Amino acid sequence: MSHVVKKRKLDKSRQDRLYFDSYSDVTIHEEMIADHVRTNTYRTAIQRNSESIRGKVVLDVGAGTGVLSIFCAQAGAKKVYAVEACSIAEQAVKIVKHNNMDDRVEVIRGTVETVDLPQKVEVIVSEWMGYALLHESMLNSVLYARDRWLKPGGVILPSKAELYIAPISDPVVEDRLHFWYTVKDQYGVDMSCMSDFAQRCIMNSDITVNSVTVEDVLSHPARFAELDLYSVTVEELRAVKGHFRCESFGSAAVNAFCVYFTVTFPCPDKPLVLSTSPFKPETHWKQAVLYLDAPLEVVQDTPVTGEVSMYPSEDSARHICIHVDYSIGEQKTQSKTFSIPDWSSEAQS
Amino acid sequence: MSHVVKKRKLDKSRQDRLYFDSYSDVTIHEEMIADHVRTNTYRTAIQRNSESIRGKVVLDVGAGTGVLSIFCAQAGAKKVYAVEACSIAEQAVKIVKHNNMDDRVEVIRGTVETVDLPQKVEVIVSEWMGYALLHESMLNSVLYARDRWLKPGGVILPSKAELYIAPISDPVVEDRLHFWYTVKDQYGVDMSCMSDFAQRCIMNSDITVNSVTVEDVLSHPARFAELDLYSVTVEELRAVKGHFRCESFGSAAVNAFCVYFTVTFPCPDKPLVLSTSPFKPETHWKQAVLYLDAPLEVVQDTPVTGEVSMYPSEDSARHICIHVDYSIGEQKTQSKTFSIPDWSSEAQS
Repeated sequence: MSHVVKKRKLDKSRQDRLYFDSYSDVTIHEEMIADHVRTNTYRTAIQRNSESIRGKVVLDVGAGTGVLSIFCAQAGAKKVYAVEACSIAEQAVKIVKHNNMDDRVEVIRGTVETVDLPQKVEVIVSEWMGYALLHESMLNSVLYARDRWLKPGGVILPSKAELYIAPISDPVVEDRLHFWYTVKDQYGVDMSCMSDFAQRCIMNSDITVNSVTVEDVLSHPARFAELDLYSVTVEELRAVKGHFRCESFGSAAVNAFCVYFTVTFPCPDKPLVLSTSPFKPETHWKQAVLYLDAPLEVVQDTPVTGEVSMYPSEDSARHICIHVDYSIGEQKTQSKTFSIPDWSSEAQS
Repeated sequence: MSHVVKKRKLDKSRQDRLYFDSYSDVTIHEEMIADHVRTNTYRTAIQRNSESIRGKVVLDVGAGTGVLSIFCAQAGAKKVYAVEACSIAEQAVKIVKHNNMDDRVEVIRGTVETVDLPQKVEVIVSEWMGYALLHESMLNSVLYARDRWLKPGGVILPSKAELYIAPISDPVVEDRLHFWYTVKDQYGVDMSCMSDFAQRCIMNSDITVNSVTVEDVLSHPARFAELDLYSVTVEELRAVKGHFRCESFGSAAVNAFCVYFTVTFPCPDKPLVLSTSPFKPETHWKQAVLYLDAPLEVVQDTPVTGEVSMYPSEDSARHICIHVDYSIGEQKTQSKTFSIPDWSSEAQS
């Protein structure tokens, strides 16, 4: 039951090694492929863009098991370079062969920053989104690939990302804080004085990855940032920020913000959106939950306003930090900075 | 989604620091107190032993929030020393005071190996059990306390621990291995060639902490070790081992062993058993699951025999290793060594 939390700086090469190692296990690939919203949206988007893909050269950045590369080949790509730094590339080679795609899909093991492609490409496809969109900073690699390998006028799939925020009331937090008041009835020992300590532990500054239920969202979400993948720069990713304004649907105790993203694929008819909104079917990204220091009561139409800023952690450039300045109702502006814990807990089966 | 696994040696003091830090969060204490089987069995055992406790001096080893110490005071203890190394001791002080027990319960912050008690004790109570009983090696501290602080003829609660093993068929593993055969129907890409890789990743040598369902247990469990807390030595804990023999209830694919424990409290009428068996109500310890390298078919009465050995990891003395030599039916003896991963995943509710 060791909840062993380590906070320390890692050198860049060690960070990269650990990052790429983490994709050597089957679990994460199973989770991604089994995420129907994710995999089906990519598949549909690639099919609908077959006019841009047919007869063209495609680069898949961070190809994993190679499934998106095969979708591109199925959509008529002349050649797909499936670039993958982690050892899962060995499985991608097998899968490509097993599907008789080895004449069109070439798996290249390495980081996109270091591999040498035989030619420039007309299309870049990538599933680069991490928790809260920017955790893991894989978008930097896509932008590198764009600037280095994409021909002028080439296509990027997806081409746009948007970030949203909404105040929420997480009932699990309420239950957990209340728990300490129930111990006396159960065991004859009054432990209610634990509630302050419990609140400090639970409403901490970790970015928690959780499924937020629709009923717990307290307002229409507000979009606070948009990234155009054709024009955004690595420099701009060092601080992605924006203002938001929400108005509470009704009376409730706000105890957190939830942050989520959408990405959009251009399509000939109308754009296709892959959404990780709590109002849409669940994905493996769930939502990023940021707990306030304490619950705060709101009534109908109470304004919740502020500014969100997302930037890479100083300790580990692949880890995201989220800073929120916010004001709820008449309350003066509060600030809190959140980060992804060194290791994120995951439910086992 | 960083599954960052680090394997490296830690020096002893750093191991201890990380170990004690892990109990500074409220989650683990909430989980332990909310575990009714655990907390109620201790409470009942302490109440039923009130004749041994009334007017006596008690030592609680690793007292946590101090709940067992308060149970002992409620059972009439003259004095309880609640020894706790981690900062949760500060909460224990508050809880003891809040329950007006500060004249009888004295919280002492420190490890039992270093604290100096004003007097010897007549009773030792401790909830020292980790995953697979011995993970975290806290029993060593109880034995130290016994040898240093327990008066001759004193009582230890609980006084006995027993370890069991049974072959199981984990259906989640079957489903996960099968998953890769379903991808073609879902997305038009044949990924069945991933199944070997998936099997290597899933049926690995980690000790997995999981709830085993009764229906998945393939034989009567076999007891392979018993520890008498009055007589067992730290030396003997360096290798806890024993033979087992089970016979399959029916036809199934064995894909794992499950290991669990019971501890027993002496009581005036009949002993009270705290069981973590899959046949009993679930506890927060669940069961330790050890996956074979590959599933193996058995039929009714197929013998499953072998020897289990549990010992501290070389990398970290608080981490347990489990080595199993086993033979299923006519198969020649196989061996596999399991260990708790550097950080155990936990569901975040």
